[in-house]
Amino acid sequence: MKKLLISAALSVAALPLVADEGMWQPHQLPSLKKELKKAGLKLNPNDLTELTEFPMGAIVSLGGCSAAFLSPQGLVATNHHCTYGSIQFNSTAENNLIEKGFLAKNLSEELKAAPGSRVYVTEQVSDVTNKVLNNIKENMSGIDRYKAIEKNRKALISGCESEAGYRCRVSAFHGGLEYYLIKQMEIKDVRLVYAPAGSIGKYGGDIDNWMWPRHTGDFSFYRAYVSKDGKPVEYSEDNVPYKPKHFLKVNANGVEEGDFVMIAGYPGSTNRYRTSVEVKNQFEWYYPTFRKLVHNYIDIIEKNAPEGSDARVKYASTLASLNNVEKNWGSMMESYGKGDFYQRKVVTESKLANWLDADKAMSQKHRSSIEALNALIEEDQKEQETEMKLWAMGRDALSSTAARLYRLALEKQKPDAEREPGYQERDMTRFKEGLKRFNRRWDEKVAKELYKFFVAEYATLPMDMRVKSFDKAMNIEETFNADNFAKTIDSMFSKTKLTDEAVRLAWMNKSVEDFKKSNDPFIQLAVATYDENYQRELKNKQRSGQFQQLRPKYMAAMIDFYAHLDKPIYADANSTLRVTYGNVKGYSPKDGIYATPFTTLEGLLAKHTGKEPFNSPAVQNKLIKDKAYGKYLNKKLNSVQVNYLTTVDITGGNSGSSTLNNRAEFVGLVFDGNYESIIGDWDYDPKLKRGIHVSSAYMLWVMENIDKATNLIDEMVIIR
Amino acid sequence: MKKLLISAALSVAALPLVADEGMWQPHQLPSLKKELKKAGLKLNPNDLTELTEFPMGAIVSLGGCSAAFLSPQGLVATNHHCTYGSIQFNSTAENNLIEKGFLAKNLSEELKAAPGSRVYVTEQVSDVTNKVLNNIKENMSGIDRYKAIEKNRKALISGCESEAGYRCRVSAFHGGLEYYLIKQMEIKDVRLVYAPAGSIGKYGGDIDNWMWPRHTGDFSFYRAYVSKDGKPVEYSEDNVPYKPKHFLKVNANGVEEGDFVMIAGYPGSTNRYRTSVEVKNQFEWYYPTFRKLVHNYIDIIEKNAPEGSDARVKYASTLASLNNVEKNWGSMMESYGKGDFYQRKVVTESKLANWLDADKAMSQKHRSSIEALNALIEEDQKEQETEMKLWAMGRDALSSTAARLYRLALEKQKPDAEREPGYQERDMTRFKEGLKRFNRRWDEKVAKELYKFFVAEYATLPMDMRVKSFDKAMNIEETFNADNFAKTIDSMFSKTKLTDEAVRLAWMNKSVEDFKKSNDPFIQLAVATYDENYQRELKNKQRSGQFQQLRPKYMAAMIDFYAHLDKPIYADANSTLRVTYGNVKGYSPKDGIYATPFTTLEGLLAKHTGKEPFNSPAVQNKLIKDKAYGKYLNKKLNSVQVNYLTTVDITGGNSGSSTLNNRAEFVGLVFDGNYESIIGDWDYDPKLKRGIHVSSAYMLWVMENIDKATNLIDEMVIIR
Repeated sequence: MKKLLISAALSVAALPLVADEGMWQPHQLPSLKKELKKAGLKLNPNDLTELTEFPMGAIVSLGGCSAAFLSPQGLVATNHHCTYGSIQFNSTAENNLIEKGFLAKNLSEELKAAPGSRVYVTEQVSDVTNKVLNNIKENMSGIDRYKAIEKNRKALISGCESEAGYRCRVSAFHGGLEYYLIKQMEIKDVRLVYAPAGSIGKYGGDIDNWMWPRHTGDFSFYRAYVSKDGKPVEYSEDNVPYKPKHFLKVNANGVEEGDFVMIAGYPGSTNRYRTSVEVKNQFEWYYPTFRKLVHNYIDIIEKNAPEGSDARVKYASTLASLNNVEKNWGSMMESYGKGDFYQRKVVTESKLANWLDADKAMSQKHRSSIEALNALIEEDQKEQETEMKLWAMGRDALSSTAARLYRLALEKQKPDAEREPGYQERDMTRFKEGLKRFNRRWDEKVAKELYKFFVAEYATLPMDMRVKSFDKAMNIEETFNADNFAKTIDSMFSKTKLTDEAVRLAWMNKSVEDFKKSNDPFIQLAVATYDENYQRELKNKQRSGQFQQLRPKYMAAMIDFYAHLDKPIYADANSTLRVTYGNVKGYSPKDGIYATPFTTLEGLLAKHTGKEPFNSPAVQNKLIKDKAYGKYLNKKLNSVQVNYLTTVDITGGNSGSSTLNNRAEFVGLVFDGNYESIIGDWDYDPKLKRGIHVSSAYMLWVMENIDKATNLIDEMVIIR
Repeated sequence: MKKLLISAALSVAALPLVADEGMWQPHQLPSLKKELKKAGLKLNPNDLTELTEFPMGAIVSLGGCSAAFLSPQGLVATNHHCTYGSIQFNSTAENNLIEKGFLAKNLSEELKAAPGSRVYVTEQVSDVTNKVLNNIKENMSGIDRYKAIEKNRKALISGCESEAGYRCRVSAFHGGLEYYLIKQMEIKDVRLVYAPAGSIGKYGGDIDNWMWPRHTGDFSFYRAYVSKDGKPVEYSEDNVPYKPKHFLKVNANGVEEGDFVMIAGYPGSTNRYRTSVEVKNQFEWYYPTFRKLVHNYIDIIEKNAPEGSDARVKYASTLASLNNVEKNWGSMMESYGKGDFYQRKVVTESKLANWLDADKAMSQKHRSSIEALNALIEEDQKEQETEMKLWAMGRDALSSTAARLYRLALEKQKPDAEREPGYQERDMTRFKEGLKRFNRRWDEKVAKELYKFFVAEYATLPMDMRVKSFDKAMNIEETFNADNFAKTIDSMFSKTKLTDEAVRLAWMNKSVEDFKKSNDPFIQLAVATYDENYQRELKNKQRSGQFQQLRPKYMAAMIDFYAHLDKPIYADANSTLRVTYGNVKGYSPKDGIYATPFTTLEGLLAKHTGKEPFNSPAVQNKLIKDKAYGKYLNKKLNSVQVNYLTTVDITGGNSGSSTLNNRAEFVGLVFDGNYESIIGDWDYDPKLKRGIHVSSAYMLWVMENIDKATNLIDEMVIIR
């Protein structure tokens, strides 16, 4: 399960809750006591609400991925694909750790993780709804509301971050009905401890991504370091392993069919409460239209960066993301076409309407805001084609880098607290890292061809939707002339100095005046188009403000409706800590076929072709042929369990989450969902939605028999 | 499961017998009493040996397909693909029965089946080994042995067929260790009674052929007619339905998982006792090499008969057969590559060798003939490339038709009894039908291109392997000149009159002298090459005679070896009546996936795309959406069972066989095997080999609800 390059930005419809559905905030769990017990949990759900106690104290975020402490020495287990950047960062052509894998036999051999790698330990989550909405008036304009909320959030964050070593954020729940301030210790010294060979950690590669049956050893280990006095500081040789308050014990047996499992992690985003109008638009216009654009995007890269070329290497990760989008959206469109998701949305909405019809007080309270939201959605959809084409145009690295640099100069004129998020002092490390990454991901020929294509697409918009200053700067007439445009950008590409890293970095410290005087064509373009783009941004913020007003109202209606149905409700995922639970269980992808919940080493060997991504290491193949399973033999399977399926409700961001059994012991890592679950971000289907996990039994078998990582096994508490 | 165009002609290795393996001759069943009872049979196995009693008296052959009587009025149930020729024969562009299906609401509406359609009722099977081998001497040459056996067989057949209305044959078992004379009543008046629409009977088409999950209603009905006094005579309006001595009752519930099932039918051929040398050659040289030839064959047809052309229609069935071969052999090569079939053969042979080493008497008896067989196999393989290329050249319809006609003139000079099989009076109807079919399956351009390709391939053979008289007649030098050859055949194709049906038929009655005087270039070619080809034929017969001597000896060794292991042994399939039994059971096609034993109507609907071959009729779709399952609802499935899997040991020729439950009630029809079972003709794997059946429940549901075939349901005895 890879995160998508493009995050769908859209809006709310009611689903009746079903078994195992739900990404719950820890404080909600006591209300699910009965369900959790029935599913098999042996712990008291009240214990799961304490973030600094066991087991939640062992759960961490890596920012984008989830993870957990597995030893008292700050050993962190997560997915191989979550530490991939760090493995890559430490690789050279001569010493390719992605291929070979890596094991530090002791602390001194551990390697610095990639710049920006972090371990976030959530220590406090507080309801700050009143503070965020403190001075918000009902009759504020959208833009004023947006700005006021932004200001309140920033104030809360800055107060919270006054304590050194902490990173804070304010997250909206239910579209802004509730706000929580999340305080996380930010461990900055993160080191790579162990990763199996890519032929284990990435076995099956992109071909098997989202697929079952699966045989991937998608696991690896970091270690968190702090100063000798326990403070989260930057890397230093003097730092010592962080001693977490809690860590998970490792059950060496993995799981059995039907077992209770639980995932605590940081799911990215879901859209479980969108309206039927939004659903129809998303699946019948947005995904199909955008997917065509993605097709073209891929074609242009593949044509201009042929396989084996340097350019192809530079666009490899872009291509991987685009292909992932293509597969992901393809699956969702397929599921939507086959299923009755839309019909069920309509039914739920009509039930909601009937309920409102029957209850005057509720009707009074909710009816008008539901109508207002629907009107706003309609208005928003009028802009979506324009937004999509501008988004595509914004993929051009030179023009967007110039625009971001100019914006930085402008923002710097304001006090830090008033700057746009992304341009504050706290963001500057990442900003710089972005500028440094540029050349590793950019090729002149590919960039030019993409820009030509995207601008030609943009130029199909009617004049009143276009960016006039852009058309003027680039000499684009009402009817687009591709030859003229090609000449324009040939000249711009040859004149610009922004392809030079030092030049880009230098622009970070220049004044607005410097920009205005520059003769770099892309800087000139940024300056020329800034005002108009900014006005468009304000217009979007105005609409965001309106959504911030109406979404919460709609969700309030849904909450009342659910309460009437006596069903608990969970907020859509928003990269905050959530708990989901379920059981080990297979599923039927189609009539006549059942996906059994386990894969085995024999199945792994059967996939082996010797060619990437099905190139299992010779030593592993030999061990399997010899049935050298030792204490990891599962008698029912007569093999070692490799991957397994469960009914947990996960999404991107959950990657790397530890899978816990009914006593909160570590039994594996979740790393993917099945193909049929991709639409799960919109519509949870208990018959089809499954998480894919790597079993603790396979992890330990690999560590012990293939990589001889006995030092790590010794460091953990193993339950056999 | 479609029969292959090309039947593999090859030779023997021991397999330890496993559960459900075995295509048993009915007289063997009492020796399997224990196993049959354990599997669930309620009948006494002794009752299964009586061919004219229940239930075997209800089982018939259609020649190539199997079938059974389902009513006292001669109603015959078989597969849709077994009556396909008759449905096609009765179709016109305006009244396409393949598309629409067909139902005779009463006897008078029944349609003549395609010419040559037969129902064969086996009445007697007698061991004639002594008679066939009566005057065979140990030291006879291969050719003398071949001719002597042929003569004895023909005498037995002709004696048996002296009774009007019977067709007889002498079949070799265990490669000629035993011979049985099979006497079948030949019902010649066969009529088409009922076939569902092609969108049911062929649902899934070639895409789903050999595949699971499957949702095909592959069933239809014939009726057998005889004269008023009960004799099997040609079609006549006065004929009346045949009253079989026995027929099967129909169980409307189909089957449940684990149920005992039994198939009595006419499996075509298997190679379960070939030697390891033969297996290696077959899978590592023969299939891969021949498959390449088939690829080229397909390519040439597709290129020269573009989709939508008349020529494509003419070559449709050839293409279908070639594609079937390609899929079939592809599967076998895949299974062979993944599995350890060859290794097991080698192990079995070494066990056989060890046993012989330990038993002097057995060694004395068998060792030298095993060695002699292996030497003969080696000699045979030296000719295989030549044989393959000559086979391909023989695909040319004009030259092969001319050769067959000339051969007929020559054979006619002998008394009927001495003629080559295929050229006797009893064969003349089929011979004529073959000549008539010519133009429906021939296109000049395609035929020319194929001939050019195949002759060019032939011409890569060394000179001593070539047909000198052919080279001379066609002006082919040692180094093949494609241009010259093209000119030669352009001229031949333009001059020949054999493309005219009347001309071809007239040649059936001409003398050898007429042939020698003819100026038709293909007749001239036939005359010019006859002697040399005949010498080659004799050489092949000589080898066949040697195999007829050595195979039985090898099988005698195998039988002694099996006896020593206390295991029963069955003969390879040879289109004679066999019984196989097993249970309703799924299988795992790969790790993490299980094929469940049933498909349902919901699964059928899920496959529906509206486009052939997944174009389920609207009326069926509506019934499914309405869940209008009535008395055919299976509660466990909450649907109607469509197709199911069992462990029966079947192969091509079993198509159309009734599936019997433990009380010999009709519970469906077997119509295919799963993809993984294709190698089953060589190697039975109990984990992977499954038969695919259409359930009696689905058949009746379709008949009752879609086609309103209540007249047929009323005619049968239905058990509910």
